[in-house]
Amino acid sequence: MARLLIMYSTAPPSDGHLRHLAGLGGDVRVAGAEDVAIAEAPEAEVFLGHRYLWQVLPRAERLGWVQSSAHGVTHLIVPALLERGPLLTRAPIFGDVIAWHALAMGLALIRGLGASCFARGAGRPPTASVPAPLPRVAMVFGMGEIGRELGRLLKGLGCTVLGVNRSGTADPSACDTVLPETWREHLGRVDLLFLCAPLTRRTWRIIDAEVLDLLPTHAALVNVARGDLVDHRALADRLEAGRLAGAALDVLDGATDEERGRLNRLPDVVLTPHSASFLPNRQEQFERFVEEQVRRYLAGQTPLHVVDYRDQDYVLPGGGDPPRR
Amino acid sequence: MARLLIMYSTAPPSDGHLRHLAGLGGDVRVAGAEDVAIAEAPEAEVFLGHRYLWQVLPRAERLGWVQSSAHGVTHLIVPALLERGPLLTRAPIFGDVIAWHALAMGLALIRGLGASCFARGAGRPPTASVPAPLPRVAMVFGMGEIGRELGRLLKGLGCTVLGVNRSGTADPSACDTVLPETWREHLGRVDLLFLCAPLTRRTWRIIDAEVLDLLPTHAALVNVARGDLVDHRALADRLEAGRLAGAALDVLDGATDEERGRLNRLPDVVLTPHSASFLPNRQEQFERFVEEQVRRYLAGQTPLHVVDYRDQDYVLPGGGDPPRR
Repeated sequence: MARLLIMYSTAPPSDGHLRHLAGLGGDVRVAGAEDVAIAEAPEAEVFLGHRYLWQVLPRAERLGWVQSSAHGVTHLIVPALLERGPLLTRAPIFGDVIAWHALAMGLALIRGLGASCFARGAGRPPTASVPAPLPRVAMVFGMGEIGRELGRLLKGLGCTVLGVNRSGTADPSACDTVLPETWREHLGRVDLLFLCAPLTRRTWRIIDAEVLDLLPTHAALVNVARGDLVDHRALADRLEAGRLAGAALDVLDGATDEERGRLNRLPDVVLTPHSASFLPNRQEQFERFVEEQVRRYLAGQTPLHVVDYRDQDYVLPGGGDPPRR
Repeated sequence: MARLLIMYSTAPPSDGHLRHLAGLGGDVRVAGAEDVAIAEAPEAEVFLGHRYLWQVLPRAERLGWVQSSAHGVTHLIVPALLERGPLLTRAPIFGDVIAWHALAMGLALIRGLGASCFARGAGRPPTASVPAPLPRVAMVFGMGEIGRELGRLLKGLGCTVLGVNRSGTADPSACDTVLPETWREHLGRVDLLFLCAPLTRRTWRIIDAEVLDLLPTHAALVNVARGDLVDHRALADRLEAGRLAGAALDVLDGATDEERGRLNRLPDVVLTPHSASFLPNRQEQFERFVEEQVRRYLAGQTPLHVVDYRDQDYVLPGGGDPPRR
């Protein structure tokens, strides 16, 4: 009987979920705290969720499969994982939600809505400032599930969509042009720059001072991927100088406390606390997904959305400073 | 030589604009204050802008044409205007901008962005709350230039769009179904309710307690038309009780100070100060439009976007309390 250890990051498992997993034939344990996870790790064959993954990996001698709750998992690929070599699967089931969140963030910036709500929160009247024209050209950096869905939404609004990905191939329903290495040459005509790419050795802090200075001053930046794609110091410098219309950031990993403080004080910044995939019934949908994944696994099939992490040039957060490009 | 009196609401006329109008053969005066407008009124044949319209109408003996700077002009149709009977033209040149603003407001509400920025303005951390599912059904109340453009944007995002207008006819590119009198029956499946209708005797406070209670609790309301379409007391009651996901209001005319105060304190409310049509180069675009309208007028042609105000059941704000439906 396979021992399943649950350690979800977002919410504890529901009773119905636990019953369902037991009904599939799983021997289910729940780790609501780090010490429980560490104590349970040696017997676990499957980790559902990744909350204490780094801490439990050294003791997880029977580990065969990790089902992450995240859409992108590059932050989980640490040396200890490579050493253990379990199956690793993602949960890319909220790509459409993240794409809508990114779109909402971009439109809020260009219409000055974040600044107006910030002013009201501070006890001042709503503001009328509109920092940008209507968007005509959007660049979507990263054309995975999220980027493709976002590209389709933007095209539906009549925008020209410049997709960026490594392979230079993309779905024509999701973008007008796909750019591999030449994307920087097009920044001068970008109204909205959306970051939807995985964090790898190649994309670490790729949105740097040089990139930001190539954007028009009315452009807005939206990041729903990983904070470490962005040089937050360079971004804060430019926002404070009014060099951009604004920035919307769902992720701030990699930013220093000082950089976070500077961004947090700016009215033309929209921040959400890594909640781009949230929905009122998100946990319910996630539990249904995990149940189907576990069903496959226990039936001897391979679960969906396997990450081929040995073939990628992912950043190794446990391995010291992130590499320079 | 036609005497043109400029009284714009948004910004003073540029020097280039004044030169252009003089070059067309206009005898141009600028009223930057009410007393100037009143002093100039008796000689003016044309009012460009409507800032002091109510005050100057009684003395405007030679008035032949009023070019409003507004998209919708029902608030200008007062008894003194009906008495004078000048040509009245609208400036519906920012319908697309207002539609984008409305869309941005709706998406900000359902993704909790306004509340997150409000919290930051108040010195609290950004919030993660997402009050609504992704939108599937939008109702667009009023299918004029703004409503049609908004309908096209929403359809581009894959939403089902229920248009509402009096005639029951609408452009199929802008909505899936058009509803005349039966619209209330469909409120139970509406995720986003957008108000884009003119204010008339029939639409005065049409969004009342009964309508709000027919909406799902996750629905969001967006008003970019006229405040008097909405019963703000009923709206504030429901928002305070968490009965709706939120409301985004670009207009608050008709709301009492107490109602404004209540709405202003709510984090899940997005307010903008009648700036839905704003753009960085708005005044420039508006001046080009006015110049073309004046050119037509001085050449003996009828300017565009004439309002047939005698045929409409417009509210008469100068005539005492607005009528009940």
